Amino acid sequence: MAATLHVCITCKAGEPVPEGAVAPGALLHAALVAGDAPEGVRIVPVECLSACSQGCSVALSGAGKWSYVYGRLTQDDAADVLAGAAAYAATSDGIVPWRERPVIFRKQSLARIPPLEG
Amino acid sequence: MAATLHVCITCKAGEPVPEGAVAPGALLHAALVAGDAPEGVRIVPVECLSACSQGCSVALSGAGKWSYVYGRLTQDDAADVLAGAAAYAATSDGIVPWRERPVIFRKQSLARIPPLEG
Repeated sequence: MAATLHVCITCKAGEPVPEGAVAPGALLHAALVAGDAPEGVRIVPVECLSACSQGCSVALSGAGKWSYVYGRLTQDDAADVLAGAAAYAATSDGIVPWRERPVIFRKQSLARIPPLEG
Repeated sequence: MAATLHVCITCKAGEPVPEGAVAPGALLHAALVAGDAPEGVRIVPVECLSACSQGCSVALSGAGKWSYVYGRLTQDDAADVLAGAAAYAATSDGIVPWRERPVIFRKQSLARIPPLEG
């Protein structure tokens, strides 16, 4: 079982980013890559998850699994995002029992999408 | 090429639904099913897309395509949703040129997720 964690690296979290400064999305991506990558989780940068008003955002997906998008994240959430991604990767359908989800995943879900059929 | 249009039928659009009344999400689903189903688009009801604060919501997905979630919809948007779903189904990657998207798809995107790889 495996999962892909897409991280929006262009996210400005709804704020202007001063010239030369690193976008909040890129900071979150860097913090995630610098953390302990959970087994089976691939971290992939992406330009825009179309959740700009709720940035920074990440998406979890995997073959045969429900996909989830979470928002209103910062680099300080990296450890919790990795823990949630690990729990997600370990499922067959993407549905982690509610109590085993990090609080940010319980409270900051933007959307979920059922798996593709057949 | 094809697409699945998932419609949240439990959505209450953030409002209490009086006993015996039909949930706004179910009304949207009914309006979509009653419309002219675009070629290649399968309409599938689903319980909760976890976008409850931005309901009613629908998701478009298809093999090899970006997935999209749209919110703040009502049954009056059914024709536009079907037109947008038709344009989506006709693409190979899910990315419809901006000007060819219905206005509700341009303005009410909640999130998008890259396609699964290989």
